[in-house]
Formats: sequence, structure tokens, C-alpha cells
Amino acid sequence: MVAAKKLADMLDELGLISDEPGQLTRTFLSPAMQRANAVVGEWMRQAGLTVREDATGNLIGRLESTSPRAKTLLLGSHLDTVRNAGRFDGALGVLLPIVALSELRAQGVTLPFAIEVLGLSEEEGVRFSSAYLGSKGYCGRLKARDLERLDPTGLSVRRALEAVKGSAWTLPKRAHPPRELLGYVEVHIEQGPVLAARDLAVGVVTAIAGQTRGRVTFTGQAGHAGTTPMTLRRDALAGAAEFVLAVETLAGKRPPLVATVGVLTVKPGAANVIPGEVTLSLDVRHPRDTGRRAALRALATRAKLIARRRGLRYGWESTQENDAVWCSRPLTALLGQSVRSVQSQSPALVSGAGHDAVVMSALTPVAMLFVRCRDGLSHHPDEFASPSDLAIALRVMMEFLQRLAKAEGRP
Amino acid sequence: MVAAKKLADMLDELGLISDEPGQLTRTFLSPAMQRANAVVGEWMRQAGLTVREDATGNLIGRLESTSPRAKTLLLGSHLDTVRNAGRFDGALGVLLPIVALSELRAQGVTLPFAIEVLGLSEEEGVRFSSAYLGSKGYCGRLKARDLERLDPTGLSVRRALEAVKGSAWTLPKRAHPPRELLGYVEVHIEQGPVLAARDLAVGVVTAIAGQTRGRVTFTGQAGHAGTTPMTLRRDALAGAAEFVLAVETLAGKRPPLVATVGVLTVKPGAANVIPGEVTLSLDVRHPRDTGRRAALRALATRAKLIARRRGLRYGWESTQENDAVWCSRPLTALLGQSVRSVQSQSPALVSGAGHDAVVMSALTPVAMLFVRCRDGLSHHPDEFASPSDLAIALRVMMEFLQRLAKAEGRP
Repeated sequence: MVAAKKLADMLDELGLISDEPGQLTRTFLSPAMQRANAVVGEWMRQAGLTVREDATGNLIGRLESTSPRAKTLLLGSHLDTVRNAGRFDGALGVLLPIVALSELRAQGVTLPFAIEVLGLSEEEGVRFSSAYLGSKGYCGRLKARDLERLDPTGLSVRRALEAVKGSAWTLPKRAHPPRELLGYVEVHIEQGPVLAARDLAVGVVTAIAGQTRGRVTFTGQAGHAGTTPMTLRRDALAGAAEFVLAVETLAGKRPPLVATVGVLTVKPGAANVIPGEVTLSLDVRHPRDTGRRAALRALATRAKLIARRRGLRYGWESTQENDAVWCSRPLTALLGQSVRSVQSQSPALVSGAGHDAVVMSALTPVAMLFVRCRDGLSHHPDEFASPSDLAIALRVMMEFLQRLAKAEGRP
Repeated sequence: MVAAKKLADMLDELGLISDEPGQLTRTFLSPAMQRANAVVGEWMRQAGLTVREDATGNLIGRLESTSPRAKTLLLGSHLDTVRNAGRFDGALGVLLPIVALSELRAQGVTLPFAIEVLGLSEEEGVRFSSAYLGSKGYCGRLKARDLERLDPTGLSVRRALEAVKGSAWTLPKRAHPPRELLGYVEVHIEQGPVLAARDLAVGVVTAIAGQTRGRVTFTGQAGHAGTTPMTLRRDALAGAAEFVLAVETLAGKRPPLVATVGVLTVKPGAANVIPGEVTLSLDVRHPRDTGRRAALRALATRAKLIARRRGLRYGWESTQENDAVWCSRPLTALLGQSVRSVQSQSPALVSGAGHDAVVMSALTPVAMLFVRCRDGLSHHPDEFASPSDLAIALRVMMEFLQRLAKAEGRP
């Protein structure tokens, strides 16, 4: 399919636009981001879109409808990247709609709704350690305190925006009132191994999991590894090890719950000293907030029991909490029908990672399409989606737009 | 008991001689070590000993016997310390014999053997990351490669010795041929909680445990904590946690085996990333080498099974291996009788930590007396042995010397 080849070439070309030579890194408002907006803006124009950049650096390509009082459908994702990124994360969800609209135009298809393709300026949180600045700006949800965040050079978000815009800067309002919107549809590389394991090119996201991050500490008694008999020990690491396995076991029993201990620090941390204190991170995600909260309660109880039995103290601190976002039922149903028209089945996926759709869901109903990710590898230069999978995703998008046109009553 | 008070005062005074203001640190050949040798040497002289310093900086106080062809009994421990040390570790085993000999002299007791009280110059391995330099020098077991070791300033052991001795330096021969020695008896603070748990002041050491240190690595697959279902994970930390518990369980079933994981490092070590690699330290000690080796085989098998079941790779590397040292049966029996004459029972202890007696055992039979350590706390400024426990240890030593005199046929 020629269009898919074109999409793959565009992804390759955009992947070369970077702030760091030899690897792909584009951060909020950086020179590479401005070059990326220029290049993608040109592709938008070639597809027939009218291009502008909003106050937060979001690139917006708009295709008007001929229908009177037409609503607007939003399609998009982000153009910024993590450090040393792959070239699909974000970019795919911006470029695929451009190619799809270009194809529909070539086929003479018109739509009874306007479309805005969004190249959002910030999702990864790299420069200011704060994610979703682009979508928050688009949705009018940036707060004054977001603007005070500093990058590693000490420059604030506000100053960075003023420097790029060349003028004083005020908090932007939302781009559209909700009643004028049909929804937001985001295509994204899966960043996980599920589609690969099921040998399917694409899948429809039903929910973006809620997430709690926390820190758990077990405190025992440091002691000499040679002179303290096993019966007289209060080993913080042994308690923490029990907890790590409890986390794994609980999540294994309650899919689609996922729970992870990714950081574990031992004090004093000498080979001949019994660990006196262990701190570990806990990351718990579930598409239902009730499921996530029940898991957290069960794990807190478990930590308490482990600590009591071993004569340890334990501490439990929640550091971040995001509730789950459910995708729009009608949009997701339409997307599922579109998938089934192209692929044998339409698997329902939960997104364990956050996406722009999380913020956009406060403005308008959202839906997401995931594309298979080789080896589940993402945030890595080897991130890859095959041209044949891109072709399928492209056909799903074109199918979806036409089905939505029918549902909205094509003139 | 006046003598015990005197011993406690000497320990306090010696504990003030330090290379670092505000805390006790004395390292091999340092200015504080030289001041310590001068002060302890003076105490030796006051007790009637003839004092010299050998080529390795060991302080030696000798009490000749009136008996013709008398053998020599060695009593002692080390005068160096760890950083920010307690004042009993090492010092107790040097000062207690001085006070004991002073008391016996005051009581008009003479012995049918000569005595050397050794204030060994290096046991802790702080300055040159190499332990037992003092006892190795005394036993003629220093090797040319020991002399090439460097301190943090880049000075070698050889240069440091030459600087202190003021002349070229050759490897010393052993202080005595073994046939002229009766043995080596070391009094040491327990550095563990066993005597405290049994509410006893002193105990006799039957063996110094052999020790193997190693490094175990589990390698799985790093992945996104949100997007990787539990069933598709190869979590290196979960495997390592199983192993930590296996270590604890095995040692718990096979006393007096002790086994410890004191260091555990997780890579990449981010809260939202499944651990891809975990490296942990393993420290295994047992008074019987067969017991230690059997434990290591069992744990290696266990690591292999854990890795296989979880689809992980594992690595196993031994970094240090010391065989066990058994104390002399006759000396230990005599020491046990001496303990029972002063205390309700004579508990047999295994030393999990290494001591100068490990090196001395290659020269002559060794025995050790442990003194209760408050809360098992050692290598810490709060290290403490009570005056009443010191009094008991002192009576045991005096009793032991007189029983040995009887056994050796007092004239």
C-alpha cells in the first residue's frame, strides 16, 4: 500500500529531527520541536489542512467541512519525545491522520464534520518534569503553577513560552466548547507486548488504567552478618523480598491488574551487614479505580502482616494517584467495527501507560487505537511498528472516518 | 573489683587516642597508632613486661619465666580500629592480659612459661583494604604482594613501613618457631547478640567460621510497568526476592549456618520499569567447611531452579573464600573450666567474624574468650561491655593462666 509506505517514510524523516545528534530527542519548545512543527505543518498543508500553532506550541491542522454547523473531530497525539526515543511514540498518532485525510481526499471522500489534526507540543514530561503541557494548553487546563515549573537550566515554562512566542503570555482558554466537538481519537504504538503475543496488528483501547505510585519502607535492625544467628535477626530485606513476591502474586491473580516494584534500596548496603532498612517503589495500575484501590488495601494489609511477623516497622506513602479514564463507548464501538473490517478480530486492550487522551477526556469523549510494537519495546531507539501493521492502522482510520461520517449523517 | 575498674579506665583512655577528632579511628602505622603503642607500652612496663615493637609495628610485651627452657604463651589482639569505632574491639584483648598479669604479680603468682602480650598493629583492613597485616607480620606470613598494596593516598605498605621505621625494610620472619609456643589466647568482645540473649558474661569460642562471599546476578527483561501484563514479565527482582527468601530459609534450617544478602542492586531502577537485572551479594558462614560448601551447593541449585522457572538467566561468582579455623581442644577445654569456675555455665560459641586468631592458628594452637556485647552492637561508638562483665573476663583469664601453669607443671 503506497500510503503506508509514505507514512513510514514520514516517520523516518521526522525521526531525524532531534535536539541531540545521533539520537532522537525532542523536548517542549526546543529548536528541534520548532523544526518538527514546520515540517509536519507542511505535510498538513499538502493534505489540504489549514495550519496554525496555538499559544502552547501545539501544531493544529484544520480541515473544514462543507456541512453547515458541522462539529469537529479531533485526531492526534504528541510530537515531543523522551530522550533517545523511538520514532513512533507520539509521531504515529499525528502523521497517520494526515496520510489518511490525504488518501480520502484523493478518493474524493468528503466528511460531514470538521477535523483538527493535533501535533501536541508536550506529553513526555522530559524538560519540566511535568507531563501533558500541550494537551492541557489545548484544553484550557494549564494552571498558573504549571507555568512556574523550571527546566534544568532554571528557565520557567512561562519564560520558555514567552521566549518562543516573542511576547507576554496569558493562560490560554480551551480551543473549543465541548458541544462543538465529536471526540478525540488517538492512534499510538502499544508500548507493550500484548498485540505481539496475540499476533494482531491493531487493537482498540477500552480504558487507560488508573495508577497509584507509592513508597514502602521496611525497617529492621542492621547487624553483623557473621555474628548474628538467623533466629535473632530482623532483616529488612527478607521482609521486603516477601512483599515483592506478594505484589507479584496478587497482581497475577487479578488481571488486568499490574503491580510493579521497580526500585529497591538497601541500607546500610554492605555485603557483611544484615539490611536494617529497605525502601521500595510500588506502581499499581488497573482500568477500574475500585480494582486498583482494592489491590492497594490488600497489599497494605500484607505489608503490615509481614512487618508484624518479622518484628519490622513499615511505612507506606502514596506519591502519585491518577484515576482511570474510560474511553467513549460509541466511538470505541465504531473503532472496533472498523478494526473488524480489516483484521480477523478486534481485541479490547487496556492502556497501562498514560496518553494525551487522559487530559483530552476532560474536554471531549476519547477513543484510542493501538498498533503492535515489536517485542513490546518502546522509549528506545529500536521501537518499531512494521509497514504492514501501519497499513492496517491506516485502513482502520479511513474506515472509521467513513463510518463516523455515515453515523453523523453524511449529506 | 578494682582491677576491672582499672581495665575499664584504660579502655576509656586508649579510646581517646584517635586519628580523627571526635571519633575513634586508628589505622595501621598512623600517628594515633604510634601514640597508642607508646601508651600501651608504658602500661606493659608498669605490669613488669619488657616492651619492644617488631618490624610490622606490633607492640610486644614479654614476661620471662624463671623456669629453664620455658615455652611462651601468646595473649593479645589488635590495637587498630575501624572508622568511628567502639573502644573494646581489639583493645580489650590487649589490655585485659596486661591487667591480669599485673594482678597475678601483685598476688605473688609466678608462671612456668613466658608470656608475650601482643598489641597487633593491623587487623581491620581499613588503610590498605587488606586485613591481618599485623598478625601476618608476627607469624612471618606477609608476602611481597602484601607490601605492594596502596592506601588511598597511593602510598604502599612497604613505603609506609619504611617511613615509620626510617630504613629499608625486609619481610620479617616468624617471631618464634612453633615448638617454643604454648598457644595464642585472644579475648574479644563478641560483636554479636548470643551472650546477651543467653544472659551470660563470657563464652568460649570453639571455631571461627569459614566464609564464602559471592555475587549472584539474575537477568530478565526490563519492560514498561504499565503496559506489560503479569503473565508476559520476566522480572529479575521477583526472582531475586525468591532467592533472598531461599537464603534465609536454608540458613534457618541448618544452624549454626548463617547466610546473608546485604547488597541488592536493581537495574534500570525506575518506579515505572520492570527490573531487568538484579545483582546481590551473598555471605555464607559455617564453622564446618563441609557445612558451608553444602549450603553453597544448595543455594546455587536453588538459584538455577528459580531462574529456569522464571525464564531468567543467572550468574554466580565467588569473590572470597576462607576456610574455618578450629580452636585448640586442650586450650579451649582449660578455658571452659576457667569460665565454669566463675560463671554458672560455659557456653560454646562459634565466631562468625574473623579475628587475629585466624592467622595465628597457622603458627600455634589458638583459643578465644568472648565477652558480652551490649545489644550485639560493634563497629560503632556505642559498643559496650559492662564493668561487671570485664571483671568476670578478667577472673577467667587469671584462672586460666593458673590452670595452665598447673597443667604445664608449675615448679
